[in-house]
Amino acid sequence: MTEDQAAVEIVGAGLLGASVGLALRRAGVEVLLTDIDADHVRTASGMGAGRPAGPGDRVGLVVVAVPPAHLGEVIREALDRTSGTDAVVTDVGSVKAAPLAAVADHPRVGRYVGSHPMAGSERSGPLAASATLFDGRPWAVTPHPAADPDALEAVDRLGEAVGGVLVHLDPEEHDRAVARISHVPHLMAALMAGRLAEAPGRHLALSGQGVRDVTRVAAGDPRLYSQIVAGNASAVADLLHEVRAELDGLIAAVSDGDADGLRAILARGVAGTRAIPGKHGGPTRPSVSIFVAVPDEPGNLARLFADAGEIGVNIEDVHIDHDPGRPVGLLELTVEAARAEELQSALESRGWVAHR
Amino acid sequence: MTEDQAAVEIVGAGLLGASVGLALRRAGVEVLLTDIDADHVRTASGMGAGRPAGPGDRVGLVVVAVPPAHLGEVIREALDRTSGTDAVVTDVGSVKAAPLAAVADHPRVGRYVGSHPMAGSERSGPLAASATLFDGRPWAVTPHPAADPDALEAVDRLGEAVGGVLVHLDPEEHDRAVARISHVPHLMAALMAGRLAEAPGRHLALSGQGVRDVTRVAAGDPRLYSQIVAGNASAVADLLHEVRAELDGLIAAVSDGDADGLRAILARGVAGTRAIPGKHGGPTRPSVSIFVAVPDEPGNLARLFADAGEIGVNIEDVHIDHDPGRPVGLLELTVEAARAEELQSALESRGWVAHR
Repeated sequence: MTEDQAAVEIVGAGLLGASVGLALRRAGVEVLLTDIDADHVRTASGMGAGRPAGPGDRVGLVVVAVPPAHLGEVIREALDRTSGTDAVVTDVGSVKAAPLAAVADHPRVGRYVGSHPMAGSERSGPLAASATLFDGRPWAVTPHPAADPDALEAVDRLGEAVGGVLVHLDPEEHDRAVARISHVPHLMAALMAGRLAEAPGRHLALSGQGVRDVTRVAAGDPRLYSQIVAGNASAVADLLHEVRAELDGLIAAVSDGDADGLRAILARGVAGTRAIPGKHGGPTRPSVSIFVAVPDEPGNLARLFADAGEIGVNIEDVHIDHDPGRPVGLLELTVEAARAEELQSALESRGWVAHR
Repeated sequence: MTEDQAAVEIVGAGLLGASVGLALRRAGVEVLLTDIDADHVRTASGMGAGRPAGPGDRVGLVVVAVPPAHLGEVIREALDRTSGTDAVVTDVGSVKAAPLAAVADHPRVGRYVGSHPMAGSERSGPLAASATLFDGRPWAVTPHPAADPDALEAVDRLGEAVGGVLVHLDPEEHDRAVARISHVPHLMAALMAGRLAEAPGRHLALSGQGVRDVTRVAAGDPRLYSQIVAGNASAVADLLHEVRAELDGLIAAVSDGDADGLRAILARGVAGTRAIPGKHGGPTRPSVSIFVAVPDEPGNLARLFADAGEIGVNIEDVHIDHDPGRPVGLLELTVEAARAEELQSALESRGWVAHR
């Protein structure tokens, strides 16, 4: 993206659209905003995400950032509207085969290439937008056989300009991938969380960090997630059938006391957790958790991290354990296994109560 | 627990047994250790978890901390061995109906009351033990109709002495509760993680925090978890049948494009996440996440927490987001909703890039 390019027009100035605008403005790109809700344009332009689009504006790239149910129609309209120019159209929706199918018969289909930033928020609307929303997150781009090479390049440059890490997948493969790493995990979390809704409080009082982690994403907005899942129904249903077959096997193993069968299912789970790439995209390095007791008052976390910083061991992840009934938090620090002993001893020598 | 009491004998000096020993020693209680593995006793006593049990020791309470498959037999043996005294026997196993059933016909069944500390580690053995393992964690105690009141009281005092928060449930109810808040969540995580094991790396490259959280606990040892699940097979199978019925409904809703049905399942999930008690056992307070970009080097976390500490807003939870391909971490700080604006502005005024 260079200064001499035509402007980027963003259709839909909600969380994602306004965040793309802020990130592009950060990169020096001219941004035009449109939305059926004039308040959204006012808010987003007031935040510095771009200026309201006007007649005569020259547009090089249209980014469609509308709710899933309207994507196909708005992408089509953008292709119509930019007819006679070489403008490129993309979108930032969570599924990619359906929008492409909606424009497959359009004479300008070669100018459309879809995107999907793997970033979001539990909030919505332009006020929740951020210039850093896409920094370091995967930005999927979904080429298709009819796409013009320069259209694909323009969408790649968009993903880079907003700070994303490009991942190319064809639309069908993208949808299968997000079914597996996003939509079905969300649905599994919702199924599990649904089993908690009716549980007595004295049962839930035994809850530890595990059940909290398993169910956390299920807190997301049912309206949004039902649209996302509906747009990827076929890939999601295929995987749910696989889960169901495995669940049947699990029920049989538990009911029949089949220890080998149960262990095999659990071992596949262990293999799956190891298959997820590590923090920097590489294979997972062996890491270890150290638990530190931290009195639950402002200042103690700072003191702990100041000590950890001086010790010089990089902390890969950190989690505060929720302790019912006690004003002492347990902080879980995840560090490279080879450095764990060093960190624990050094923390203990500084007066922290730490264990593994 | 007072100094004039008879000693506590711990049978099985692994992670849990040695941790009980360390925590009791911290409270000034005399602790005797036994284990079929003499190395465990040597290691645990070397760590300060107690001294090896010898002939003539007067025992007031026996804590059985052996693997799930051996619990009933070892509890029975402890009741036999303390015959003619008023010693109490408890255990720290993950299921509670099966061990009670194993001693139901024992003449001293009144002296047995089970325990279950909701604490553990992915590691095992006495070297992984810690005096703080139970601090602030739920410590379930499971009274039964034949239990002597003073036996129940002794087990309550044990849970308090090691720092736990007492929760009373009868054994069957306890097993149903842990099936729901621990065993089935673990199995659901394993089912989901199993679907990742065979996925292509380019699909997994799109993984965000959600799928990591949903599957994290599935990394646990398959041998241990298969024993735990086998010991609670009936309650686990009942819930898995419920999950299966709900999964069938989910598959139908997704396949038939039934938006209302899908939203209803997702809404039950939202209700479930809200039913889990908050950090201090009370109802969940509204909280908000603030994301802060943190260059991935030692020292930056300390600087951030020092700033947060000076700002004076209590941080309820913290999470480092894993960013493939980029040396900038996104730190998620969870704070009370009413203080979020203040924290975000103050962080930004100190030069941090923060968003919600």
